Amino acid sequence: MFIMEAIRENTAGAIMTPEFVRLREGTRAEEAIRAVRASGLDSDALYTLYIVDHLDHLLGVLELRTLLAAPGEARLGDLMDTAFTAVRMNDDQQEAARLVRKYDLLSLPVTDEQGRLVGAVGVNSIVDVIEAEDTRDFERMAALVPSEDGYKGSSVWSLAWRRLPWLLVLMASAILCAGLIQGYEHLLLASALGGVMVSNIPMLMDTGGNAGSQSSTLIIRAMALGDMQPREAGAALGKEFLTSLLCGAALGLVNFVRMLLISGDTALEAGAISLAVFFTVMAANAIGCILPMLARLLRLDPALMAGPLLTSVVDILALTILFALVTAMA
Amino acid sequence: MFIMEAIRENTAGAIMTPEFVRLREGTRAEEAIRAVRASGLDSDALYTLYIVDHLDHLLGVLELRTLLAAPGEARLGDLMDTAFTAVRMNDDQQEAARLVRKYDLLSLPVTDEQGRLVGAVGVNSIVDVIEAEDTRDFERMAALVPSEDGYKGSSVWSLAWRRLPWLLVLMASAILCAGLIQGYEHLLLASALGGVMVSNIPMLMDTGGNAGSQSSTLIIRAMALGDMQPREAGAALGKEFLTSLLCGAALGLVNFVRMLLISGDTALEAGAISLAVFFTVMAANAIGCILPMLARLLRLDPALMAGPLLTSVVDILALTILFALVTAMA
Repeated sequence: MFIMEAIRENTAGAIMTPEFVRLREGTRAEEAIRAVRASGLDSDALYTLYIVDHLDHLLGVLELRTLLAAPGEARLGDLMDTAFTAVRMNDDQQEAARLVRKYDLLSLPVTDEQGRLVGAVGVNSIVDVIEAEDTRDFERMAALVPSEDGYKGSSVWSLAWRRLPWLLVLMASAILCAGLIQGYEHLLLASALGGVMVSNIPMLMDTGGNAGSQSSTLIIRAMALGDMQPREAGAALGKEFLTSLLCGAALGLVNFVRMLLISGDTALEAGAISLAVFFTVMAANAIGCILPMLARLLRLDPALMAGPLLTSVVDILALTILFALVTAMA
Repeated sequence: MFIMEAIRENTAGAIMTPEFVRLREGTRAEEAIRAVRASGLDSDALYTLYIVDHLDHLLGVLELRTLLAAPGEARLGDLMDTAFTAVRMNDDQQEAARLVRKYDLLSLPVTDEQGRLVGAVGVNSIVDVIEAEDTRDFERMAALVPSEDGYKGSSVWSLAWRRLPWLLVLMASAILCAGLIQGYEHLLLASALGGVMVSNIPMLMDTGGNAGSQSSTLIIRAMALGDMQPREAGAALGKEFLTSLLCGAALGLVNFVRMLLISGDTALEAGAISLAVFFTVMAANAIGCILPMLARLLRLDPALMAGPLLTSVVDILALTILFALVTAMA
């Protein structure tokens, strides 16, 4: 139930208002101003006028300020902007938000499948959409079931209820880590590296988790802002690969020096853990990049999949890498 | 260097435009419309008119649509809204964003300390402010040094550079965990609970980290949306306490049953770890709630302190709780 709501059902049609001023190409500016004044429309929708044909197909858009500045005899057909931006009823609200943001619009026309004008979305609705979408993303990335209620309006019961589902799922996946560690208990007890391994598990898992959440946050945010198209996935993966090479090498090196000089570990111990840091950061960045893309392919919210699930996947990967390395070196 | 930029320096004055229409109380509607048409102003700032006295003190605000609907003889002093909302030059951009959102404004007047009109902030600037602030919060909470460049515009070098500072700080703090585990190595090796403890450390740390980040995200978001005032801190703490009681008890119970029935651990082992889960969730929620509040007191961005630092603090707490419990039970 708490995964299903992640599928986007917020369409532009749901936030449009049917209030707007509809005029014809042949109308003169002076007449249009009279029509606006007589419209009795008491909303910001008044500031953008729409010019339609007799079947209500949208032909052009005219800003009220352009109309006011025009000579009284000018025809709307000559004043209107025909290179306007519009959305369809079923388009996503985020697409509407992206267009309003990109073109600094006060109002965005909404048409049906045949290009007929059915409504308009105002910028103030878009502000609400942006904050609601961002809040949902923040909450999903923090393993919360999103809610429309603010913090103040939520009861303790509902707050607990919004937290428990993912906490339980994540606890279950963390238990896989426990199983992994138990499965390698003989190695931990037998190997000379056992003690160093155990004490460095939290550092390894945290570093991997942090690196992965950095990548996923950048990718999720770029997607949310319309700054990354599906065809750019390959380029992003390449970028993450190179970035993770740099970060993994730097972190591994710092860890190697730290273990040798501060913790007084042997070169073998320091080498094993540092290699694990390097490979974990590489894997975490790749996963942090791939999970949001995969979510989008599956038509799920990228924030949902990457946030809560990322840590668990990276934890298991970190342990697998560590144990594989120590087994190879034992 | 990367902590300093967290101090908010974004003022409303920085995003205001000096373009607006300034009129007098005694002006008649018909004259005002002529003045607007003659202003030659080609921006959305035209849709909100400001009425000032001879010293430029802001007396009232008038929507262009109200002016257009008014009888030609009406005086602006009678048409204008005197219960308007304004910000000062030095107010935070987020305060401007909060007001525009709350009152569905297209434009917000900016005054100096004497209440004289100096400019106006348009809603489209506010949309940019909101997205930029949210992006900064996402990035800070994911341990990234924020940047104005989008993902596509960032080089691999700058991407690595934005990630490494916090990764290094967080790795260093995770090493404290390693030190803690090493310090208790005798206990781990000697105690009958040692094996169970080691294998459950990742589960405990993850569960604590997730619970803490849920709390901090809700608090940070409520603060960012202006939904939580400093005087409400006590109420929020109380709410988090009760929520963490519920979540901690539920997670502890599920873990107890799991260890007994699935993992085949003894009741003592299951009890020790489950109690640790309970207390860790309690502590993590409290820390997740307190850290953003503390950040605000220190005039730092709540997202900065709560995101990256929270996990480390919670990890150390989780281990301390676990070792204290096992020592007490040994």
